[in-house]
Amino acid sequence: MSNETGPVLALSGGVGGAKLALGLYRILPPDTLTIVANTGDDFEHLGLSISPDLDTLLYTLSGNDNLELGWGRRGETWTFMAALEALGGETWFRLGDGDLATHIERTRRRKAGESLSAISHDFRRRLGIAARLLPMSDDPVRTRLHTAPTPPSPASGGGLGGGAGGWLDFQDYFVRLRCEPVIDRLEFAGAADVRPHREFLAALADPQLRAIVICPSNPFISIDPILAVPGVRAALRACNAPVIAVSPIIGGKAVKGPTAKMMAELGLPVDAAAVAHHYRDFLDLYIADEEDAAAVAGLDMPVVLTRTLMQSLADREALARAVLAAAERVRK
Amino acid sequence: MSNETGPVLALSGGVGGAKLALGLYRILPPDTLTIVANTGDDFEHLGLSISPDLDTLLYTLSGNDNLELGWGRRGETWTFMAALEALGGETWFRLGDGDLATHIERTRRRKAGESLSAISHDFRRRLGIAARLLPMSDDPVRTRLHTAPTPPSPASGGGLGGGAGGWLDFQDYFVRLRCEPVIDRLEFAGAADVRPHREFLAALADPQLRAIVICPSNPFISIDPILAVPGVRAALRACNAPVIAVSPIIGGKAVKGPTAKMMAELGLPVDAAAVAHHYRDFLDLYIADEEDAAAVAGLDMPVVLTRTLMQSLADREALARAVLAAAERVRK
Repeated sequence: MSNETGPVLALSGGVGGAKLALGLYRILPPDTLTIVANTGDDFEHLGLSISPDLDTLLYTLSGNDNLELGWGRRGETWTFMAALEALGGETWFRLGDGDLATHIERTRRRKAGESLSAISHDFRRRLGIAARLLPMSDDPVRTRLHTAPTPPSPASGGGLGGGAGGWLDFQDYFVRLRCEPVIDRLEFAGAADVRPHREFLAALADPQLRAIVICPSNPFISIDPILAVPGVRAALRACNAPVIAVSPIIGGKAVKGPTAKMMAELGLPVDAAAVAHHYRDFLDLYIADEEDAAAVAGLDMPVVLTRTLMQSLADREALARAVLAAAERVRK
Repeated sequence: MSNETGPVLALSGGVGGAKLALGLYRILPPDTLTIVANTGDDFEHLGLSISPDLDTLLYTLSGNDNLELGWGRRGETWTFMAALEALGGETWFRLGDGDLATHIERTRRRKAGESLSAISHDFRRRLGIAARLLPMSDDPVRTRLHTAPTPPSPASGGGLGGGAGGWLDFQDYFVRLRCEPVIDRLEFAGAADVRPHREFLAALADPQLRAIVICPSNPFISIDPILAVPGVRAALRACNAPVIAVSPIIGGKAVKGPTAKMMAELGLPVDAAAVAHHYRDFLDLYIADEEDAAAVAGLDMPVVLTRTLMQSLADREALARAVLAAAERVRK
C-alpha cells in the first residue's frame, strides 16, 4: 500500500504529459510533487539552448500555456518570426516572442556555467510553481530517429522517397519534417554516459514515496529517453512505491502527435495494451481509457479504466485523482 | 567643384544621423550613396551581438523605423521583455521582439564566421535598401567613457557620488545610466588596431566622389569613433571631394541625446560653432541652423545656414538637397 501523504514523482514529456502533471499539481499539497522532464528533445537552434519539454511544463504549471495553439505560451506574439523571415533566417522552428525569453535567458545562464537544473529551479520559482521541476539529467542526451530503408521507386526519383535510411535529429524529424519519415528505430545519443539528476535518484529511492506516475506522453520519444538514463530503469524496478502509467492511446489512437504512427512503424500493435507491454518490466498498474477496455482485457497486471481524455482543467484533476486512487490499490 | 553625378559618402551614428541619411537616400539615384555606420557602440548583451547604429540605419532606410518611439522598429512588440523580466533577466536594455531577429540572426552568422559587413550587406539587400551600408570596420572598436573624478562629499557617502572616476562601457553609460554620469574623456578601445572597411577606404579615395557628409550625429560618440579608425582622418584631409558636416546643435541645444551635456562636460562651448571646430582639420563647409547664425558668424570656413530640424520626411529631403547644393559651392 502506498503512503497516502508521501511525495509523488511524475515522469513527463511535452504537452500530453504536462496536462496530467498539472492535474497532479492542482490536487496535491504544494511541494509534494516532483516532475522529471524528458530532455532528449533539447537542441541548439539559432545559437539558443532550447528545452521544449521543460518549457512546456514551466508554461503549463504556471498557467502560461497557450490553450488555443495547444503548445507554447499564453498571449504569445510572433513579431520575431516575421522579422527573422524578412532577414532570410531559419523559420521552420516556430519561436514565439515570449518563448524566446526563456531560451535567451537559459542560454546566457548556461554559458555562464549554471546547470540546466539550477536554471529550471530558478525559472519555476520565479513563475510561482511550487512543485519541483527537474530535467532527467544535467548532462545532454539527444534523441535521434533512424529512417527505415525504402526500396527504390521510379516515382520518388531519389531523395527522401527511397534509400538506405539514416539518422535524423529529433527536431528535424518532429518539427521540420512533421514526423513524416517512416522510422525503424531510435537512439538516445549520449545517454549511456550521463547521470540522472541527484534529486531524481533521491525521489526514486525515497521510502515515503506515494507513487511514480508515467504521464500519458509518447513512450518512445518522451519517456524512453528518461528510462535510458543509467540507473533509472533499475530504480523503477526496485522501487517500493507503485509505478503507474497512463495510456497515451485513447480508442486505439493517439490524442496528439506521432505515437500511433510510430507504434505501427516499430511493428507494435497500435493499441493501449502495447504501451503497457512497453513498460512491463517496472509497471505495477496501468490506467487506460474506458474506450480501450477490450484492448487491455488480456494484460497480466492491474488495470484501471477511466476517462483519460483531458480537455478541461476538471478532466486533468479527475484523471490525477484516479491515478492517486489507483495507487492505493497496489500492494507491492 | 564637386562631381554632380558622383557617389556620395555619408558618415552616420544613430537616430539623428539616420534621418539625414534617409533624406540623401531618397533624393539620390539608387546605388550612388554609401553610408558608413559607427560601430563603437556595438556590444554583447544576453549573448547577442548588437550593432545599434547599423540597425537604426537598416530600419530607417527600409522604412521600418519606429516614428512613435523615435528609435527601434516600426510595429514593434515587447512580449520578450515582459517574459524576460518575469524570469529575472536583465531588462535595462530594451530589446523589441522584431529587433531581436536582427540580433539573433547576426549573432548566428557571426559565430558561423561571416563578417559584420557581409551580414549587413545581406540584411540591407533583403530589406530592399539600394544604398550601400557599411560598418566603419569589421574589427571591433568599443567606445568607453571616463567619468570625471568628483571631490568627496559628506552627502554622497561614496558610490557614484564621489571618487576617482572610472571607465564605463558605452551602453552602461548611454542606456543603463541614461547618460547621467559626468564624463571628462572618451576612448575608442581597439581602434588603433583595426582596419577601415575596404569599401569605406575605396569610397574615400574615389576620384568621382561628389561629397562626404558628416551627418548631424553626436560628434563624440557617433563620429569620433569613425575618425579614430586608422587612415580615416588622413583620407578626409586628403580627399578631393568636399567634406560637409551638418550641425547636431540647433538653437544652442541638442535635438536629442547627450551632445550638449557632453560638450559642457568636455569644456567646450555649447554651440554650433564648437562642432565645426571639432572637425576643423578636414571640414570644407559647415551647415548650421538659421537659429545659430550668430554662433557660427566667426567661423573661418564656408557656412550655409538653413533649417536643419528634421521632423517630416520632406524636412529630411530638403536638408539633403541643401547639403548637396552646398557641395557644389565648395572649391578645393
